[in-house]
Amino acid sequence: MSKKENILIIGAGLCGSLLAVRLGQRGYQVKLVEKRPDLRKVEQDAGRSINLAFSDRGMKAMRMVGLQDEVKKLCLPMLGRKIHDTQGNKFMSLYSGREDKYINSISRPGLNMLLLDAAEKLPNVELVFNQSCQSVDLENTKAVFKDYNTKEKIIHTADIVIGTDGAGSVMRNNMFINKQLRMSFSIDWLSHSYKELTIPATESGGYKTDNNALHIWPRGENMLISLPNLDGSFTVTLFLAHETGTDNFEKLNTPEKVTEYFEREFPDAKALMPNLAEEFFENPTGHLGTVKCYPWSTFGKTIIMGDAAHAIVPFYGQGMIASFEDVVVLDKYIEKYEGNWETIFSEYQKERKKDTDAIADLAIDNFYEMKEHTANPLFQEKRKLEIAFEDTYPDKYNSKYSLVTFNADIPYSVAMKRGRAQDKAILNLLDDGKLTDFMSLEEKLTLVLSETKDILHDDDVAKNL
Amino acid sequence: MSKKENILIIGAGLCGSLLAVRLGQRGYQVKLVEKRPDLRKVEQDAGRSINLAFSDRGMKAMRMVGLQDEVKKLCLPMLGRKIHDTQGNKFMSLYSGREDKYINSISRPGLNMLLLDAAEKLPNVELVFNQSCQSVDLENTKAVFKDYNTKEKIIHTADIVIGTDGAGSVMRNNMFINKQLRMSFSIDWLSHSYKELTIPATESGGYKTDNNALHIWPRGENMLISLPNLDGSFTVTLFLAHETGTDNFEKLNTPEKVTEYFEREFPDAKALMPNLAEEFFENPTGHLGTVKCYPWSTFGKTIIMGDAAHAIVPFYGQGMIASFEDVVVLDKYIEKYEGNWETIFSEYQKERKKDTDAIADLAIDNFYEMKEHTANPLFQEKRKLEIAFEDTYPDKYNSKYSLVTFNADIPYSVAMKRGRAQDKAILNLLDDGKLTDFMSLEEKLTLVLSETKDILHDDDVAKNL
Repeated sequence: MSKKENILIIGAGLCGSLLAVRLGQRGYQVKLVEKRPDLRKVEQDAGRSINLAFSDRGMKAMRMVGLQDEVKKLCLPMLGRKIHDTQGNKFMSLYSGREDKYINSISRPGLNMLLLDAAEKLPNVELVFNQSCQSVDLENTKAVFKDYNTKEKIIHTADIVIGTDGAGSVMRNNMFINKQLRMSFSIDWLSHSYKELTIPATESGGYKTDNNALHIWPRGENMLISLPNLDGSFTVTLFLAHETGTDNFEKLNTPEKVTEYFEREFPDAKALMPNLAEEFFENPTGHLGTVKCYPWSTFGKTIIMGDAAHAIVPFYGQGMIASFEDVVVLDKYIEKYEGNWETIFSEYQKERKKDTDAIADLAIDNFYEMKEHTANPLFQEKRKLEIAFEDTYPDKYNSKYSLVTFNADIPYSVAMKRGRAQDKAILNLLDDGKLTDFMSLEEKLTLVLSETKDILHDDDVAKNL
Repeated sequence: MSKKENILIIGAGLCGSLLAVRLGQRGYQVKLVEKRPDLRKVEQDAGRSINLAFSDRGMKAMRMVGLQDEVKKLCLPMLGRKIHDTQGNKFMSLYSGREDKYINSISRPGLNMLLLDAAEKLPNVELVFNQSCQSVDLENTKAVFKDYNTKEKIIHTADIVIGTDGAGSVMRNNMFINKQLRMSFSIDWLSHSYKELTIPATESGGYKTDNNALHIWPRGENMLISLPNLDGSFTVTLFLAHETGTDNFEKLNTPEKVTEYFEREFPDAKALMPNLAEEFFENPTGHLGTVKCYPWSTFGKTIIMGDAAHAIVPFYGQGMIASFEDVVVLDKYIEKYEGNWETIFSEYQKERKKDTDAIADLAIDNFYEMKEHTANPLFQEKRKLEIAFEDTYPDKYNSKYSLVTFNADIPYSVAMKRGRAQDKAILNLLDDGKLTDFMSLEEKLTLVLSETKDILHDDDVAKNL
């Protein structure tokens, strides 16, 4: 058996913890260092304990490490989007025409604890908390940390260093400032920021409204969403423009204005939120950005993964899942080229970059889809047709949403390309009146598939000369 | 007459100098501060004195300040691309089917000197050299400089501060690091770097090869280009991959390897370059990147312009021209909202951002077009058809290149959208065999225009729902 390298992982969030479990299972000597305290031993901050959407690609990663049954206990199924209008009317828009295809609401700290517990059980994985990374010597795979308790400087060295230290990654910054590495980098701030609020559980611990859906209050410019938690509460998130438009964070600067805004725009939600104004001013305002960069690996010995390499906005419910998928893809190349880290990292980043770019762009698209398009008649007609296709011809059609969410073996970039072409085909066929009431559903599907094929062909000719 | 504000311009390159002239002509009190010595008084560095392409949008800016006749004296017309194969065969690919449409080679320092001379003649414009900007207090419109000679710290204050301090802008960085401003930012490094070389003049000061074209030696992965100078020499630029592919900068590490490479790939060029190997190792290797960011203006009192706001790769010959066009667009809003700088800057950046994004993307496209597509049969067939359209129906057709280069009143974003749709239409019609020999040129044009219209319509439906 070949020598097993020492691996230092910086950051014990969701990506770093899963990676530690997997590398531990493969027999590597893993040191996982986290700047925050062990989240299993401290109370969670209000306004930051957000829940997440969990779906097929995430489950594939959990199966890889054998935690598929454990994670199911944390999951609350959401079958579709429940759209609320300003009158309090609601209607359900399913995520798929297939019955067994839904997404789940899951608690971020709950999932992280599950992974930390699994990592801790492995004798070759060491967990270190309260040490914050100050800088990384990339060429010599050596990193300097500061201990929050002792204030001392600590140096960890390893054969391989992997940065999973999140959107504000210190390791990525060490790569970026080394001009010899010519790392391309971008950060794009969204026009909208967010505020987390709560619909509390009933006194008996039940849910105040339907807990089998992701609720959306789309208002064109801004929107409110809510996801259920296991304890009967809902985490509610307001996505609001920072300074533009009629309503924005700059203008909502008193409890009265906040109350008036919610009464006007989200009356049925407000009725369920007794602590609205207090929470609004107590909880932090979070900013949303997309981070892209490349290359991710340096000197054949270091790499950044997860949000450190590709932070995205939350609107496709794929941020954490994309980071989990990173670990699945890396694991494939570790299996294939074990011991040859330069090749593992180089093949990994070559395959993976186009897919994380795709999900970043899809997540931005979905922001507009959720806040505006879900209320648009042409969009609703498209979704109705797609649900019918998926229900009647489950083997012949997958909407863009299904390709991304329920097809864990289709890369994001392929899902994006095909999904966008399908959307373009259906929207244009509808707009041109070519999908008539006289056609059978099968005839409509045939026309949509043929139009999609033409669109993809024409794009290819133009792009590839 | 309204009060005329004091304006501090940081950076006396091409954009800053033109801006100083225009603001001076409008009567503002202008202080133009440059970190380098006055380039009219020092010898130019070898390998950095690059010439530039100058065309219609640049001329429009020079007309605005009344320098259209002066600038013509610096121009050397280039009617098209002269393509060289490895056997030394050449053919000319015109830039337009219209006779009076061509681009020019112009000296960067020559043009900068012309603008500095014009600025200096205005009594209300003050030029300051050898002062390098260290930081800008954006909110209080105050900037700290260091004098290279005295090493002293100098503070300049003004009502308005404009940063034209280039791709590595200190002013932009001051905006970016202020997290309250949430400035989006990206830098994308090109896979290829460049090296400037020379074809010297003949002993009598004549040209060693045709001086009425931009010469290109396209080799798929890499390419060589040359532009003529007024003194009979040509500036030759090698665009070479940094580390990928068969030939790259990492591998060309001895004079023998450089000589062998040029003999193999560019034999006819090499025959004209007696100092090839010396120059290759004496001149610096330049890196190429695209910088985008937004917003450009802060506190209604500061703005960045030119390369500081949007640095692009040089392949469309529009980098300097886009910066000149910035001044033309800003001038339009100064005329419209004189004195109200918050509105001037806000309207300016809202209009301008999409156009500088477009020329940045077009410049990347043109990199691939120049090094690969110019040698591709389908591309050549497209160009032949477009030249015929422009020659026979000058009022009915403009290629993408013509829209960008010879139509100064069409915004870059409009040129890109229309130009890409036309390219897609022609390439697909050619690929599908729908442009047959039996059709007249007019029938072909009609088909291309109708196909273009369909493409634009379908895109709009998909994008706007």
